[in-house]
Amino acid sequence: MTAAPSPRDLDFLLYEVLHADALTSRARFHDYSREAFDQVIATTRGLAADHFAPHRKANDEHEPSYVDGKVVIVPEVGAAVRALAETGFIAATHDAEVGGLQLPHIIATAAMFHLEAANVGTAAYALLATGVANLVAAFGNDDQKRRYLLPLFEGRFLGTMALSEPDAGSSLADVRVKATPLDDGRFALTGTKMWISGGDHELSENIVHMVLGRIEGAPAGVKGISLFIVPKRRVNEAGESGDLNGVQLGGLIHKLGWRGTVNTVLNFGEREACIGELVGQPHHGLQYMFHMMNEARIGVGRAGAAMGYEAYLYSLQYARERHQGRLSGEKNPAAPQVSIMQHPDVRRMLLSQKATVEAALHLILACAQLVDEQETADDDAARRRATLLLEVLTPVAKAWPSEACQESISNAMQVLGGYGYAREYPIEQLWRDNRINPIHEGTNGIQALDLLGRKVRLENGAAFSALIETMGASVAAAKAAGFAAAELAVPVAAAVERFSATTIALGKAATNMEPVRALANASAYLDLASRTIVAWLWLQQATTASLALSAASADDALFYAGKLQAARYWMSWELPRTVQLAELLVRMDGVPFEMQDAWF
Amino acid sequence: MTAAPSPRDLDFLLYEVLHADALTSRARFHDYSREAFDQVIATTRGLAADHFAPHRKANDEHEPSYVDGKVVIVPEVGAAVRALAETGFIAATHDAEVGGLQLPHIIATAAMFHLEAANVGTAAYALLATGVANLVAAFGNDDQKRRYLLPLFEGRFLGTMALSEPDAGSSLADVRVKATPLDDGRFALTGTKMWISGGDHELSENIVHMVLGRIEGAPAGVKGISLFIVPKRRVNEAGESGDLNGVQLGGLIHKLGWRGTVNTVLNFGEREACIGELVGQPHHGLQYMFHMMNEARIGVGRAGAAMGYEAYLYSLQYARERHQGRLSGEKNPAAPQVSIMQHPDVRRMLLSQKATVEAALHLILACAQLVDEQETADDDAARRRATLLLEVLTPVAKAWPSEACQESISNAMQVLGGYGYAREYPIEQLWRDNRINPIHEGTNGIQALDLLGRKVRLENGAAFSALIETMGASVAAAKAAGFAAAELAVPVAAAVERFSATTIALGKAATNMEPVRALANASAYLDLASRTIVAWLWLQQATTASLALSAASADDALFYAGKLQAARYWMSWELPRTVQLAELLVRMDGVPFEMQDAWF
Repeated sequence: MTAAPSPRDLDFLLYEVLHADALTSRARFHDYSREAFDQVIATTRGLAADHFAPHRKANDEHEPSYVDGKVVIVPEVGAAVRALAETGFIAATHDAEVGGLQLPHIIATAAMFHLEAANVGTAAYALLATGVANLVAAFGNDDQKRRYLLPLFEGRFLGTMALSEPDAGSSLADVRVKATPLDDGRFALTGTKMWISGGDHELSENIVHMVLGRIEGAPAGVKGISLFIVPKRRVNEAGESGDLNGVQLGGLIHKLGWRGTVNTVLNFGEREACIGELVGQPHHGLQYMFHMMNEARIGVGRAGAAMGYEAYLYSLQYARERHQGRLSGEKNPAAPQVSIMQHPDVRRMLLSQKATVEAALHLILACAQLVDEQETADDDAARRRATLLLEVLTPVAKAWPSEACQESISNAMQVLGGYGYAREYPIEQLWRDNRINPIHEGTNGIQALDLLGRKVRLENGAAFSALIETMGASVAAAKAAGFAAAELAVPVAAAVERFSATTIALGKAATNMEPVRALANASAYLDLASRTIVAWLWLQQATTASLALSAASADDALFYAGKLQAARYWMSWELPRTVQLAELLVRMDGVPFEMQDAWF
Repeated sequence: MTAAPSPRDLDFLLYEVLHADALTSRARFHDYSREAFDQVIATTRGLAADHFAPHRKANDEHEPSYVDGKVVIVPEVGAAVRALAETGFIAATHDAEVGGLQLPHIIATAAMFHLEAANVGTAAYALLATGVANLVAAFGNDDQKRRYLLPLFEGRFLGTMALSEPDAGSSLADVRVKATPLDDGRFALTGTKMWISGGDHELSENIVHMVLGRIEGAPAGVKGISLFIVPKRRVNEAGESGDLNGVQLGGLIHKLGWRGTVNTVLNFGEREACIGELVGQPHHGLQYMFHMMNEARIGVGRAGAAMGYEAYLYSLQYARERHQGRLSGEKNPAAPQVSIMQHPDVRRMLLSQKATVEAALHLILACAQLVDEQETADDDAARRRATLLLEVLTPVAKAWPSEACQESISNAMQVLGGYGYAREYPIEQLWRDNRINPIHEGTNGIQALDLLGRKVRLENGAAFSALIETMGASVAAAKAAGFAAAELAVPVAAAVERFSATTIALGKAATNMEPVRALANASAYLDLASRTIVAWLWLQQATTASLALSAASADDALFYAGKLQAARYWMSWELPRTVQLAELLVRMDGVPFEMQDAWF
C-alpha cells in the first residue's frame, strides 16, 4: 500500500527547503524540537495507514444513508475520528492553555496531509471540528469557549460550516436563513441550508453547526449577515448536550465522489424551535467566516494535493511492476515485454505528476508557514509581509492544486489503462473525490476574481509587490547557487517579469473600464499566476537540490537528480504557456466577453 | 430534456459545410434524397428521446450484476436495442441485398450520434453487433455470412470484440488464447479474455464473440494471430442457436462509468469444449481487426463528442435558468440576481464547450464522409485521397474528442457548480462515462505513436501531404470568402505552416535516431496536430457562416454569429498553444525521455 507523501520528499520540503525546524527557537514552539515534529508526523502517518486508508473504499461504496430516521455511516469512520481525537490533533494548532497542542501550522499541515491522502471522506469530519473550534476560539465569548471548545477538541462534538442555501451558493450575499431575537438574547432560526458536509450523523454526541443567517430587519447583502452557533442538541450551562434543537435533516445529497462525508440539506426550526447563539457582533458574520476562509481555501488545495500525491505514488509503483509491450523499434516479437516505465510517454505522465504534486505540497506547506510567520514572526514587518503574501497566494493555493491535481490523477489513471478505469483499483475514486475541490469554498472562477479583482490591488498593490520581490530573491539565490539552479533561474526570471508586466498592464487598463469587463479574463490571469508561482517553487527546490548534490549520499543524489528533472519539466513543458496567456491578457481579448446569449 | 446534437447545428454541418446531400447523385445512394436522410435522422432522434435517454441513469445506478448464474440488466436496455434493431439500423451501411439500409456513413454517423448522446451504455450493444457484422461481411466466407449476418442485423444475435487479455491489452502481439485444429476444420479454443464489453447477458438469443487467438504452432507476435467466430451458443447449419459453447463468464468488471454496458472476463474451453470458426486466412486476424480499427477508433471519438455535446447543451440551458450573484461592480445588494450566463467566466466556459463539441461533431462527420468517399467516389484518385486523409485523421478523430470533451464536460460541471457534482444531475455521469474513451481502442498515447510513427510517413508522406494540401485549399477558400473568414484564415495559415515545418523537422531528426527517442514526444505532436486540425475545421465552418450571413434570416444570423465567435475563440485561446508545442518538438526536448526510474 502506498501512502502519500513520500517521507523523503516531505523531509526535503519541510527542513531543507522551508527550514521548519527554525520555528523551535520561537517562544510559542519552545517545547518542540525537530524530533518532536517528526514524531507528530509519524503518528499521523501511522493513523493514516492503520485507521484511515483501510476503509477508504468502504466509505465510498457504502456511502452514508438514511435508515429508520438516522444517518448510517460505516463504523470505521467513527473509530478513525476517535483515534485521531485521542492524539489531540483536532486542537493541533490551538493554545496549550485551552487544551491544544500548540503546533506550528506547517507541521499540522504536513500531518493532516497524510490523513487526507489516505481517506479524505473520513478526515473531513475532524477538519470540520477543527474549523468550528477555530471560529469559536477566535470570535466566541468566554462562555461559548468554555462550553464548546473542549468537547470539540475531544471529538465528542463534531461540527459543520452551514453557509450555502439552495439559492445562495456562490452568492452568500443572498443568504436568507432568518434569526428572530428571543428575550434571553438568543435567536430562533428558521430556513434551509444545503450542501452541508457532516450535517447529520451519529458519530458524536453532538454536532455544532456554524450558521450564517440574517437577523430580522438586517440590511440586505453581505453587511446584514450574522454568525450563529446552532447545536444539533441544546447545550446547557455545564456544556452538556440535551434535547434536540429543531435542526431537521431535509435530505442527503448523493455526490460523484468524496462520498464518505455525508452531505445534507438541513431545515432549521421547521417542526420545533431551533435556538442559536450569536457569535461576536450582529451583521459581522461573513467577515468572521472570511477570516477563516484563507485557511479553508488552503485546506481545499491541501486535500487536492494529497489526493494527487496518492494517485502519483500508486501509478509510479504500477508502472514499475506492469510489463506490457516492447519499445518502438524492437523487431523481435518474442523479446520479453518491458515494464511500462520504459515507455517514454508513460515516463512523461509520471514526471508530469511528480512536477505537479510535489509542487502542490510545497505550495501548501509554504502557505502554512506564512500563517506561522503571520502569528509568530519576531517583528511587525515580517508579520505584515507574511499576511500580504498569504492574501495573494491563497486563491492560487486553493485553485491550482485542485485543478492541476485533477489532471494529474487523470494521468495516473491513464498509466493504469483499463485497470485505472476499474473500481477494483483505487485511482478512479481519487479522481472522483478530488473533483469537488475546484467547486467548493468558492469556485475556481471566484478565486480568479478574488486574485485579479482584490488581492493584486490590496493595499495599493503591496501584496503583489511583496510576491514579486520574494520571487526576485529566489531568482537571485538560484543564480548564486550556480549549476542547474542558475540555468533554471533564466526562464523563471523572464516569467516573473512577464507576470509583473501583465499585472501592471491589466491594472492600467482597468481604470478606464467597467469592472465586469476588466475582470472578464480573470481565469486566464489565475492560470498565468499559478504557472509562474509553481515555477518559482520549483526554482527553490532546484536551488536546494543543486547546492546539496555535491555532498549527497548515493541515494540522495538520485533524489536530487529527480528534483532537478522535475524542475526542468516545469520550465520546458508547463511554464512556456504563460507567453500565450500574457498575450491574450495584455490585448484584453474580448472573444468570450463579447459572446452573446442568443448566439449559443 | 436536452438531446444532442442541436438540429440546427447538425443541418449546418451535414448540408451547408459538408454537402452530404450531394451523395444522393451516386449510384449506391440513388434511392435516397435529403428528405430521406433527414427522416432516418429524425427516427433515431425519436428513438434516442423515447427509448434511450429515459434509462440512462437507471442503466448507471443499476449496473449489470451477476445473479443466480445470469447477468441481469435493467429491462429497458433490451427494449431499446430491439426498438433500434426494428428500424434496421444495425445494418445501416450494409448492402441492401444482404438486408442493409445502404445508408452513407455520414448519415449513419449523424444518426448514431443521437443514440450515444442519449445513452452510450445501451447504444454500445447495437454498435458491437454492427461491428461483428462488419467483420463477418468483410472477411467471413459465404456460409458464415449466411448463418450470422441476418440474426445480427435483426438484433437476435449480439456480439463482442474479444481482443484484450489480462496480460495483453495495449500489446495485442502478446495474445495467448490458444486454438487447436479439429478434424472438421474448426478449432477448440482455450484461454482467457478480459475487458470484453457485452460479453455475457440475456438480451439476445446468442452472442457472437470475435476472438483473436493463436493457432498451435503459429509464429510469435502479430503475425501469428488469427480471428475466430465463437458464439455463446453453437450455431448449426440452418443458423439456429443450440447448446452452450464453453464460453464461461469469469467475472464482471466494475467500472467508473459507462456502466450500462456489461464488461466481462471470459474463459474459453475451461469446463466444456469451446468451438470456434476461423475467419479468413490463418495468422491474418490482427490485419482483419485493424481493417475495422479506423471505424472503431472514429467511433470512440464519436461517443466522446456525443457525450460532450450532451453536457454542453445541458449546462447551456442551466446557465440561462440559474440566477446567482451580481456582476462585478454592482453596488446594490438588493438588486436582483442575474442569470449566470451574464458572468463572463461562465460564458467563457460555455463558449469553450461550444468550440470543442461542435468541432468534434464536424471532425467525426468529416471522417465518415471520407469513408463514403473511399467507397463510392467516382474516380480512383479521389478514393485514394480519401483513404490517405482518413488514415492520417483517424488517430486525431479518436484521441482529440475523447480528451477535449472530457475537459468540456468538466466545464459543464463547473457551470453547474455543486449541482454538477451531485448524482441528482446528469453531468457527473457523462463525465465518468467518457473517461474510458482516452483509454480504450488504443490509448491516446498509442494514437500519438500511430500518428507520428506511421501515419505521417505513410506512402512516403503522401497522407500527410494530402492533409496539408486540403488545409491549404480551405485557407484559400476562406481568404476568397472575405469578411470574418478571411481574418480567421491568417492564424490558420500560420498554424498549418508550423504543423508542416514541425513534421518535416521531426522526420529529418528521426533518420539519425533510435525510434524510441524519435517518438518520445509523440503526445505533444498529437496535441499540435489536433489543435491545427480543429482550427482548420473551424475555418471551414466560419467560411460557410461568413458567406451565408448576408442573406440569412434573423435566426440564422444569430446562429452564424455564434459560429464565427466560436471560431474566433479557437484561434485566440486554443490555437496559439501550438507555438509552444512546435518549439518543444523541434528542439526534441528530452526532459521526460531522460528522466530515470531511479530518480522518481
